[in-house]
Amino acid sequence: MSWRDNLINIEPYTAGEQPKSDDIIKLNANENPYPPAPAVRECIERFKADGLRLYPSMDAAPLRKAVAKRLNSLNGTALTSGNIFIGNGSDDVLATAFRAFFNSDKAILFPDVTYSFYPVWCELLKIPYKTPAVDDDFRIDVRDYFGENGGVVIPNPNAPTSIGVGLDFVKELVEHNPDSIVIIDEAYIDFGGESAVALTEKYENLLVTQTFSKSRSMAGMRIGMAIGSPELIRYMGAVKDSYNSYPLDKVQIEAGVASIDDEEYFKSTNAKVIATRERVTKELRALGFDIPDSGTNFLFAEHNSLSAKEIFLHLREKGIYIRYWDKPRISNRLRITIGTDEQMDRLLEAVKELV
Amino acid sequence: MSWRDNLINIEPYTAGEQPKSDDIIKLNANENPYPPAPAVRECIERFKADGLRLYPSMDAAPLRKAVAKRLNSLNGTALTSGNIFIGNGSDDVLATAFRAFFNSDKAILFPDVTYSFYPVWCELLKIPYKTPAVDDDFRIDVRDYFGENGGVVIPNPNAPTSIGVGLDFVKELVEHNPDSIVIIDEAYIDFGGESAVALTEKYENLLVTQTFSKSRSMAGMRIGMAIGSPELIRYMGAVKDSYNSYPLDKVQIEAGVASIDDEEYFKSTNAKVIATRERVTKELRALGFDIPDSGTNFLFAEHNSLSAKEIFLHLREKGIYIRYWDKPRISNRLRITIGTDEQMDRLLEAVKELV
Repeated sequence: MSWRDNLINIEPYTAGEQPKSDDIIKLNANENPYPPAPAVRECIERFKADGLRLYPSMDAAPLRKAVAKRLNSLNGTALTSGNIFIGNGSDDVLATAFRAFFNSDKAILFPDVTYSFYPVWCELLKIPYKTPAVDDDFRIDVRDYFGENGGVVIPNPNAPTSIGVGLDFVKELVEHNPDSIVIIDEAYIDFGGESAVALTEKYENLLVTQTFSKSRSMAGMRIGMAIGSPELIRYMGAVKDSYNSYPLDKVQIEAGVASIDDEEYFKSTNAKVIATRERVTKELRALGFDIPDSGTNFLFAEHNSLSAKEIFLHLREKGIYIRYWDKPRISNRLRITIGTDEQMDRLLEAVKELV
Repeated sequence: MSWRDNLINIEPYTAGEQPKSDDIIKLNANENPYPPAPAVRECIERFKADGLRLYPSMDAAPLRKAVAKRLNSLNGTALTSGNIFIGNGSDDVLATAFRAFFNSDKAILFPDVTYSFYPVWCELLKIPYKTPAVDDDFRIDVRDYFGENGGVVIPNPNAPTSIGVGLDFVKELVEHNPDSIVIIDEAYIDFGGESAVALTEKYENLLVTQTFSKSRSMAGMRIGMAIGSPELIRYMGAVKDSYNSYPLDKVQIEAGVASIDDEEYFKSTNAKVIATRERVTKELRALGFDIPDSGTNFLFAEHNSLSAKEIFLHLREKGIYIRYWDKPRISNRLRITIGTDEQMDRLLEAVKELV
């Protein structure tokens, strides 16, 4: 026996490249090309650092309140802070939910082509899982999720496919799963999708997760959230309190509130990303790419003659970083984050050199 | 079967009272009475919020580098970033270490009177544990930790007893446990204790954890760290990357570096806390309290005639919050955080009214 025998047996996760140079165009991590709301900057500048000597709110109370209020004004719901869980990025929120809700011997279900962290959490937390295949157009068939299961996770829109589903899909999914907890991961919902937030008032077993990293341009600030029935949220709180009671610091809480309170800025930057996305989709299709209609801030593209790897390497040489995986089913696909119009024009030029 | 059957079965943790009023004297959470280093405030004021649109460093690289450099200059060690793990508060760091290192069927060992989170993590992570009793003076007998075990955790100084051990204790402990990973939790080490950091160069199975919450006045910022052999740190990184890859945001990383870089301020505020502690210990002893010599920023006090509960309630009525537990072995003990001299004078006055 050695102490090494007690080390955990897991495979480390491999993240996308994070190139350091300032010259490059970074379209590989689905980051937002626009800065956070001006109120976020102002609130950090004015932050009273002396207050850091004290612990923050354990449950990010001011931010939960601000989120509930905003969602009510958008959806006509009557959510309170008790419907909102806040974590240190939506990965923290999702991992907390997996642990709180997926304690069955039956396998949980999520698509075979989806966010690469779901199987990682299942391995870490020893949750059995099955991955129904998306079809050849990368679409999810809701009927694949009607059988016995220990829980269901569907990203809407899905990543890296960029394809969204409507609220009818979500309703049908939840109504066929009255005995499971269903998580809808809405990391990209603000780029044109239909949020299921209002449905959480009707279905006690439905949890919706969202993030500040994409549509709120705050990937560097690590804020994620979940919306659900008070019972689900209470169990997530119990897991948090048994692991790390204070996931959000004081600056995060204040900056999060500042972002939530500026709805106009939020709408206008999302509209800009969507407009760029629609234009670039058309131009890339004209250059021979197959691209599903995206409901996100990225495109899932395959060229009709050039290989994904070839395009990826050519763009990297030009200082343009996009995402490419050498994985089954998607090995000829590229994931291209929507940047500014100027950045996308440089991408289009570089692609034209090759085509 | 209902979805409720799949909810996790855990007891939520109960934190100390966090009173809201500004009038009260808060000596119940071992927070530092002094603000963080001026450089922390300046760095937050100057923080470039536009950069928040991008993800932060996955492993808090600039902060790991600053920590290694500082520790080397203090200890004559040759630590590098590969010896440092950074997490979202030392609870996050410790929970990560428990998961990475305690995967044996044998029980891990920690004292019966100690930080209340250790058994909580064991329950959550299904780690078997045993708790050797501290003696009647709340001292830890190192020989209690020589038997077969799946790992050892000793806080130095211990909380809530405030009692520290010397490096000879740590060496003896590690040398008798060549087949276990030994964690020394140094949350309070900077208030006069002897850190085991340099020993991590000699013992590959020794991990030392520290926090920014106490001696660096940054409880509101959520930064903790671990120092150990590259092998231990790599496994902690693998757990982090399988759970939440970006625990620290950009502001935390910059503010952490600013704090580490101001060694003078760090020394001077710790010296102030220590001076106040020594004075208040003497005065409370003169008023009939039994108090072990504290190596921390709090006192572990029992009165020779008044009950802990009586004193706790009287002080609370006066707006002075300290910590009291209705728990076996420590039900007549109070934990009193060291505040400013003025705050402690008000505490002494209020105690005198009662004695």
